[in-house]
Amino acid sequence: MPAGAKVRSDAAVALPRDAFAMGARRREKTLPGHARAHNRTLVLQTLLDEGPCSRADIARATMLTRVTVSELVAELLGEGLVVELGTRDAARPGKPATLLDLAHEGFDVVALDLSEPQRFRGAVVRLDGTVVERLERAIGDATGDAALAHAIELGRALVARSARTVLGVGVGTPGIVDAEGVVHQAPNLGWHELPLRDRLADELALPVHVANDANIALLAELTSSGAETLLVVRIGLGVGAGIAVAGVPVRGDRSAAGEIGHVTIGTDGGPRCGCGREGCLEAWLAAPRLRAAIEQAGPGERERVLEEAGRRLGIAVAPIVGAIDVRRIVMSGPEELLAGTLLEATAATLRERTLDEGDGLLVDMTSHGDDVVVRGAALLVRAGELGVS
Amino acid sequence: MPAGAKVRSDAAVALPRDAFAMGARRREKTLPGHARAHNRTLVLQTLLDEGPCSRADIARATMLTRVTVSELVAELLGEGLVVELGTRDAARPGKPATLLDLAHEGFDVVALDLSEPQRFRGAVVRLDGTVVERLERAIGDATGDAALAHAIELGRALVARSARTVLGVGVGTPGIVDAEGVVHQAPNLGWHELPLRDRLADELALPVHVANDANIALLAELTSSGAETLLVVRIGLGVGAGIAVAGVPVRGDRSAAGEIGHVTIGTDGGPRCGCGREGCLEAWLAAPRLRAAIEQAGPGERERVLEEAGRRLGIAVAPIVGAIDVRRIVMSGPEELLAGTLLEATAATLRERTLDEGDGLLVDMTSHGDDVVVRGAALLVRAGELGVS
Ligand SMILES: [Zn+2]
Ligand SMILES: [Zn+2]
Repeated sequence: MPAGAKVRSDAAVALPRDAFAMGARRREKTLPGHARAHNRTLVLQTLLDEGPCSRADIARATMLTRVTVSELVAELLGEGLVVELGTRDAARPGKPATLLDLAHEGFDVVALDLSEPQRFRGAVVRLDGTVVERLERAIGDATGDAALAHAIELGRALVARSARTVLGVGVGTPGIVDAEGVVHQAPNLGWHELPLRDRLADELALPVHVANDANIALLAELTSSGAETLLVVRIGLGVGAGIAVAGVPVRGDRSAAGEIGHVTIGTDGGPRCGCGREGCLEAWLAAPRLRAAIEQAGPGERERVLEEAGRRLGIAVAPIVGAIDVRRIVMSGPEELLAGTLLEATAATLRERTLDEGDGLLVDMTSHGDDVVVRGAALLVRAGELGVS
Repeated sequence: MPAGAKVRSDAAVALPRDAFAMGARRREKTLPGHARAHNRTLVLQTLLDEGPCSRADIARATMLTRVTVSELVAELLGEGLVVELGTRDAARPGKPATLLDLAHEGFDVVALDLSEPQRFRGAVVRLDGTVVERLERAIGDATGDAALAHAIELGRALVARSARTVLGVGVGTPGIVDAEGVVHQAPNLGWHELPLRDRLADELALPVHVANDANIALLAELTSSGAETLLVVRIGLGVGAGIAVAGVPVRGDRSAAGEIGHVTIGTDGGPRCGCGREGCLEAWLAAPRLRAAIEQAGPGERERVLEEAGRRLGIAVAPIVGAIDVRRIVMSGPEELLAGTLLEATAATLRERTLDEGDGLLVDMTSHGDDVVVRGAALLVRAGELGVS
């Protein structure tokens, strides 16, 4: 089956394209189109939260009328997003109700992680987050159009591997990404104002959802932790963060929330940064900088370097902890650098530099390991295409 | 008319009690009670946004059925929250439509500002934020029950001054306040775990809404600025902040969002703080500390002290600017200290220490002056009692 046949263009148009933009909307104007999409989402979310249930159950749970629910269910059955499971063996009098469920078995998501040096990673993922197939593609030092071509090829290969209908493609990329999936700045890949979402969507003929890799990691952590307020620090080529407030990812006025890499840390100078200034968080903590600092410090100094780096991260994060009152911080990046000394120094520094009442500020490594971006990308597609969280 | 006669207990029960909790809810379960309150709010919000309109206009704007709208309007007319304005001179065929409007003229709000040293301030405010009457009450160094008694007396006096129905009482207090209006900690007033909302509601026999003064100032600034992301820094006896993301105030995991007063600033020590540590933001910037530092520094040194204080505020706020990508910062507090040198040093430091692309980071004094808490308190009541924003 050609990839083009898998497009469900009606759903892609009817539903919000972007989970971040969705969450950020304060008070949605209740326009006809929005109301219908909203009601559709209510039906899908009910099935996701409650499991198999009848049209009457859905009507009760959503407060929608039976007629509206039946219309929406008919539409969703037609699209293959919902399936009928047969009738419930009801003790109640009257006609036995037909149970409905999400078509978990019918769909895959293709997820791309463009955030690692020298290689792009990808996976075919089930709607519930299970990874069923992985692919990697060495990209060397490719930038610009060459890097984009690698992303397109990896996406195409993964779509070909899926034996199901691909619901959409989720992409985690470094850099500042707006709600339309345009990468404003991704210096490591040489991308500037690149309409990554639209380019991939054209090439793959599928709905595509793009977000910054730290924000995608945040989605995965939000879903697995159930936290309302959450800070994910992602350390790799650079340093970035993903932040959630009231369970919703923060986007910011310029789609640049979490861009803490070039904030100056402390008042005592620091290493020179790529941006030309001294003491930026990235100059202390980006993985290549940290590895170089360990090598330069010489044997026996590794722990001291990691401790100082952890302390610097704590200094940077302390005002954020006070500002948004977050009690859970998750770190993602090279385990051999972050886990242990560095993470403990960050936690200790945060306790020293904020009003901590011993009430459990948690600083942990991600439990998703290297899959955090791939899993988050699947959630991004699920949210973008089905509206569910 | 006794104050007790003014209680609309039905509305107080049916509607969300707290604008912060309301905004913070990710995905409201659509239960019958909630759905009704939500629909009521839709009707009121439509009247607030659109001005006078007919039942049919409301049904179109809200996507509610005509029957539902008519029922809700009947209820709101009965409570006096909505009034009929007569019929529209419609060119359209058929029966001319009766126009409805919010009963702007029927209600007052009583607002209390407990955040200043030595005195409590209060006002009678119209639903549109106009202050119609002010009262102050000297409280000396009163703390604990004595301070509470002052608040109750001031509230009582203001309720007596209103010639209208008092929709509710809004209170801005220092300290950490939870969604139930319990003041967990307000050291300056000697309050610990004080159920301020319920104590005032009992004494005044009116619905009461309580929030931290910086968060209340934030409400006023959010409404007047229309900003989506906003940071309000409030400097008085202590230093606090109010933060909005996607137009919604951030509450935090312990209702302590914005508590940046005891975050350590810089890595070069600093003045000893009341909390026992060195270099807390409050030790640099609380109004009494700043006045003492100016006096101690001696003649001709005032500007230098203010500049260093502004720089310290910039150091504290820079990571927050990076984290939430806020482009608008509003300061509230003693104008003679904050406006000018201090504010300019804060803005300059923020530009130095964050990735600023010259795209307009705004740092301003509040345009509400000393009334910011009183006006915000009126909005808090409006939001809490009517559900409108
Ligand atoms: Zn830098
Ligand atoms: Zn302190």
